[in-house]
Amino acid sequence: MKIGILGGGQLGRMLIQEALKYDDEFFVLDPSEDCPCAKIAHHTIGDFNDYNEVFNFGKDKDIVTIEIEHINVRALEDLEKQGVKVIPSPSIIKTIQQKILQKEFYKNNGIPSPDFSVFWEGERNLSALKPPFVQKMNTGGYDGKGVQVIKNTDELLNFWQAPSVVEDLVDIDKELSIILAKNEKGEVKAFPITEMVADSELNLLDFNICPADISQDTEKQIEEIAKTFIQSVEGAGLFAIELFLDKKGKVWVNETAPRLHNSGHQSQEGNFNSQFEQFYRVIKNLPLADTEAKGFSGMLNLVGEVGYSGKVKYNGLEEILKLPKTYVHLYGKTETKPGRKMGHINVLADSREELMERLIHIKSLVKVVSE
Amino acid sequence: MKIGILGGGQLGRMLIQEALKYDDEFFVLDPSEDCPCAKIAHHTIGDFNDYNEVFNFGKDKDIVTIEIEHINVRALEDLEKQGVKVIPSPSIIKTIQQKILQKEFYKNNGIPSPDFSVFWEGERNLSALKPPFVQKMNTGGYDGKGVQVIKNTDELLNFWQAPSVVEDLVDIDKELSIILAKNEKGEVKAFPITEMVADSELNLLDFNICPADISQDTEKQIEEIAKTFIQSVEGAGLFAIELFLDKKGKVWVNETAPRLHNSGHQSQEGNFNSQFEQFYRVIKNLPLADTEAKGFSGMLNLVGEVGYSGKVKYNGLEEILKLPKTYVHLYGKTETKPGRKMGHINVLADSREELMERLIHIKSLVKVVSE
Repeated sequence: MKIGILGGGQLGRMLIQEALKYDDEFFVLDPSEDCPCAKIAHHTIGDFNDYNEVFNFGKDKDIVTIEIEHINVRALEDLEKQGVKVIPSPSIIKTIQQKILQKEFYKNNGIPSPDFSVFWEGERNLSALKPPFVQKMNTGGYDGKGVQVIKNTDELLNFWQAPSVVEDLVDIDKELSIILAKNEKGEVKAFPITEMVADSELNLLDFNICPADISQDTEKQIEEIAKTFIQSVEGAGLFAIELFLDKKGKVWVNETAPRLHNSGHQSQEGNFNSQFEQFYRVIKNLPLADTEAKGFSGMLNLVGEVGYSGKVKYNGLEEILKLPKTYVHLYGKTETKPGRKMGHINVLADSREELMERLIHIKSLVKVVSE
Repeated sequence: MKIGILGGGQLGRMLIQEALKYDDEFFVLDPSEDCPCAKIAHHTIGDFNDYNEVFNFGKDKDIVTIEIEHINVRALEDLEKQGVKVIPSPSIIKTIQQKILQKEFYKNNGIPSPDFSVFWEGERNLSALKPPFVQKMNTGGYDGKGVQVIKNTDELLNFWQAPSVVEDLVDIDKELSIILAKNEKGEVKAFPITEMVADSELNLLDFNICPADISQDTEKQIEEIAKTFIQSVEGAGLFAIELFLDKKGKVWVNETAPRLHNSGHQSQEGNFNSQFEQFYRVIKNLPLADTEAKGFSGMLNLVGEVGYSGKVKYNGLEEILKLPKTYVHLYGKTETKPGRKMGHINVLADSREELMERLIHIKSLVKVVSE
């Protein structure tokens, strides 16, 4: 089958890598000539935000999907009308693309998410806002961009004068994530809950650990959220729900991605099947794969070190390849810049203590710099 | 780095698939326009047996390697002289290409292999040959082709009048295999010994099981063979040694492949690292990967059913995707024909009994036919 992906980044690359086990043909639409998928798929250089480029790219495909949600939804709607299978549904992409609609979706479906109000440009007197709060831009947010915490009234000066969500700050105990999948037959499967540890400086996911160290009650709350979410979503798809556990033990949905997610990368070696295998099965409407964890696993992002730009060089990689149960995944990006996701390392272990020790050790060994 | 592979079949495809975790660029030389590697590597359509085509393909690469041993060695020798890194060494490819040289290699290095004599065309009186014996063509043997058993004097009529090896028949108890790797630094690592079960009709490997059910003594004999073999081989490489255990408990080398091998496919999910990862590390001279088995694992070849030719169709595949710890690997070949290797299925299990039951069950479900 001809499968078209909007976006040719690392998520698409790892999907195609996994799906090489099967007999499909992959096509990507991405503006960058040397995007991570360029050499392993048919690559159309083009803008996935442009109606015509998306429509023309998709019209001769059997299936069109996404690896980034900031794409032209109208073109996907029209492709669907033409009989092209689009997964996930354009309607859920639209909802998730816009933080205001996303928050309303949670509210309307009884999914716990921090209380919020909507800020329309120029509409409101800033002095009515009561810090501390989180401001999330309605559109364009990605990898921590478009999100800021306003801690006090002084910081109101930094408030973005743009359509956005103003959200209650959660007193975070843990950041968690659950990835779940639904195929067209309605079969649903979730991956074990993972725990994220963020790098406060770059606001990027740093370590991702599976399974999460949480109480039965927390797990139950998350299962309930996942169930409600997947029932509320129209059509098939793979979704990553990012969650906060607050210090009182309540779980809140932070946000959802309608696609493969950084918080599922450790599933490549940590689970009996990876999120990439599962997503492939979703788009092909195949029986969903078993998602069981093999033991303890963790993931460390390889991001471009601050102060280095240009042709990438990975210091310490050879040292890391000597370590057992350690898996290096690079994304085929030639240029590094501060904070750019260049790859990740997965680690398996027999206990959480061993896992944390090994992740910290590995982190101390490797550095993404430029030549 | 620019890595060139002679041959663009499934072995190359699975190597490239694994190596997508790293940042190299792959090129293949293969005569078939839609060879399994065509869509995931730069593909030069050409004959890997032709001196000029191999030399021209290789001259601008950093590394040239093989996924089939029937290639033009002289071109590789000249590429090496030009400073291109060639792995495995042209000399060991040459030795293995020719059954006569291969047998002499075993003899000269004290590696136990069945006693043999050399038959040069028209040289010898056939009536001097004493069946039963095995005849192996000096060149061109592959996947059971170019090998025949002459059971009695009547069958001497079938004797090939071509340069060949006439070899004592082993009274086989088990067929075993060991895959081992050496990098340029001289580091050596072996995979656990696997056990092969052959399909007598097609003379193709059918199931491959890890770990092999063998005595400590057998294991010791194989370790000794592996050690001697790898010490006798010049330069780096990954090698699959196919072995016979006879009914008296003695181990014999049947033959060796200087490359990735069908008997190592179950390592993709069965071991902490696969033969493909290991081979990548060999050619890049990286620290060798841990080869430990995760438990019991097995592999079933998906070969084209007798009586079907044309556009391939896999009956029963969806049923198989419902099974846990079961991994389908297709090779991207569009056309099936009787006995053609189209893919394989890997299975994990907690015991050998469970493994065998599951492999037999899976075999009963799937059929490679044509549309």
